[in-house]
Amino acid sequence: MAKNRQWLLSSRPTGEPTAENFELVETDAPTAGTREVLVRTEYLSVDPYMRGRMRDAESYAEPWAVGDPMKAGVVGSVVESEHPDFEAGDTVTGNLLWADYAVADGDDLRPVDPDRGPISTALGVLGMPGVTAYFGTTDVAEPTAGDTVVVSAAGGAVGSVVGQIAALSGCRVVGIAGADEKIEWIESIGFDAGINYETADVRERLRETCPDGVDVYFDNVGGPITDAVWPLLNVRSRVAVCGQISTYNATETPTGPRKLMQLIQSRARVEGFLVRDYESRWDEALDRLSGWIESGDLEYEENVVEGLKNAPEAFFGLFEGTNIGKQLVRVDRA
Amino acid sequence: MAKNRQWLLSSRPTGEPTAENFELVETDAPTAGTREVLVRTEYLSVDPYMRGRMRDAESYAEPWAVGDPMKAGVVGSVVESEHPDFEAGDTVTGNLLWADYAVADGDDLRPVDPDRGPISTALGVLGMPGVTAYFGTTDVAEPTAGDTVVVSAAGGAVGSVVGQIAALSGCRVVGIAGADEKIEWIESIGFDAGINYETADVRERLRETCPDGVDVYFDNVGGPITDAVWPLLNVRSRVAVCGQISTYNATETPTGPRKLMQLIQSRARVEGFLVRDYESRWDEALDRLSGWIESGDLEYEENVVEGLKNAPEAFFGLFEGTNIGKQLVRVDRA
Repeated sequence: MAKNRQWLLSSRPTGEPTAENFELVETDAPTAGTREVLVRTEYLSVDPYMRGRMRDAESYAEPWAVGDPMKAGVVGSVVESEHPDFEAGDTVTGNLLWADYAVADGDDLRPVDPDRGPISTALGVLGMPGVTAYFGTTDVAEPTAGDTVVVSAAGGAVGSVVGQIAALSGCRVVGIAGADEKIEWIESIGFDAGINYETADVRERLRETCPDGVDVYFDNVGGPITDAVWPLLNVRSRVAVCGQISTYNATETPTGPRKLMQLIQSRARVEGFLVRDYESRWDEALDRLSGWIESGDLEYEENVVEGLKNAPEAFFGLFEGTNIGKQLVRVDRA
Repeated sequence: MAKNRQWLLSSRPTGEPTAENFELVETDAPTAGTREVLVRTEYLSVDPYMRGRMRDAESYAEPWAVGDPMKAGVVGSVVESEHPDFEAGDTVTGNLLWADYAVADGDDLRPVDPDRGPISTALGVLGMPGVTAYFGTTDVAEPTAGDTVVVSAAGGAVGSVVGQIAALSGCRVVGIAGADEKIEWIESIGFDAGINYETADVRERLRETCPDGVDVYFDNVGGPITDAVWPLLNVRSRVAVCGQISTYNATETPTGPRKLMQLIQSRARVEGFLVRDYESRWDEALDRLSGWIESGDLEYEENVVEGLKNAPEAFFGLFEGTNIGKQLVRVDRA
């Protein structure tokens, strides 16, 4: 029977997560029960939202228990299937584990067509981040031609897609990211301007790059960058609140939403959203996204870390801003 | 020729406004030019937004210049009219001055029907505050039957109307205010519960009075009270940002909007609005509001300070929370 390595949450982080919060254990691979499927992981996705699950606090989802396996979006191969929709050798994606193998109810898996492109895209541009970008843009932020759109974490899996969709909609798009390589990349794929928050005065550069103010702000980060964007919000502007990575490792309660006067001045709408609310419309997003990829209108990058043992490092990188595009782990064979 | 007393902005306040920021001067009353109307003030309105105009800062309206007359919503009598729509003796309302007399373009005045009720209501429940409450509730906050609605500054001219409209819509309504008399009053006009923020633990009382969370928050105040309400926002809840009186006298820049994670968890929508955007629908609001007054469904209070010389004191009272209902100044004869 195959050996199965898997990562457990061994303790809850305080502030930045560290290697001590994770433990790699090895057991026998599980087997599939009724209507279940055994999947061998090819790629697993590390995402900022995972930091929230490691925290013992009320949120939109249950926290993960200490001692339990780390969960992740996975794309992998069916090894064994007791579900009528799948057979051995199929490529599937679903919410599985930081592990070599995992078992899932077949109803919770989606088939992935390997002929449609690299299977890793099922975790990125054609997966949760891409779908998040799609609905956050079209349904929440609602950019229209001529709008100025600002995107934070613009070099990431979500932000890079948001900016390209907005550019396709005829908007002027300004991206904020933390490395010159990211700025160069986003400016090469349709962003009109990029701001490196590590080296530039963000407020000043925003005024320069958004001379007509900001009509849409797609907020992945919160904190000081968001504080810098809000004063530029135009009348009837929209803010889509997708993530707040700047606060995820905070050990103190963030200060309050005390700058709401800026919303009165601008009559702006600020709206939080979760991609899981769009589950029933997932295929609509995939059809649009894959159409744009085929037509050459949508580009994407993936940053692949090799080896299951390096999954925690790949996760830490999200908070260091090291990844361009989607951060993935390719799982070697145990 | 009649004498005309009027208040000038003599200096910009730092923090709380004080008597030193105002100067009362006396001149001759003005006369009406082409299409103009000379109005003798009966009541003038003091409102929190005026604090913003006294500040030399970019906002949704021009700041008032030092040395210029203080402006105000006024209801008064036409003394002299060069406009075809008005004649001497008519009662009118408009944006005039903290003064005995003022001249306005007749196109900028509205007639007030004294048979419809006390003319002072044209500055309160049937004026800007009432219309603000109406559109902020029906168009921005959108409460539906069964919703839990929280209103801050609930004993004020806007909040008291918001709560009653929400109660008429079949909502559970909780009001927050700063005095026991206000709590008693709002509980007598349809609010299900009141929280005195001066004496109660607001977070604890919110949890008690909103056991099913908060579907709508009508925010007149900002600051710590708003910080206390946000964590209770339900999925797909709405926050109408109407005012932020807690910050108007601030001498330091407010901290940022750092608690936006709560909007992701709740997928809440936070929207600022200004009543002036609803100018074209003013009559719709007045028809609804006066209908509710006639049917006994909408009650209001006015807090009248006697004498033009006391107008600054009446204004200061807004920040001390002394007024129940609409704060007005009745202008004596010079």
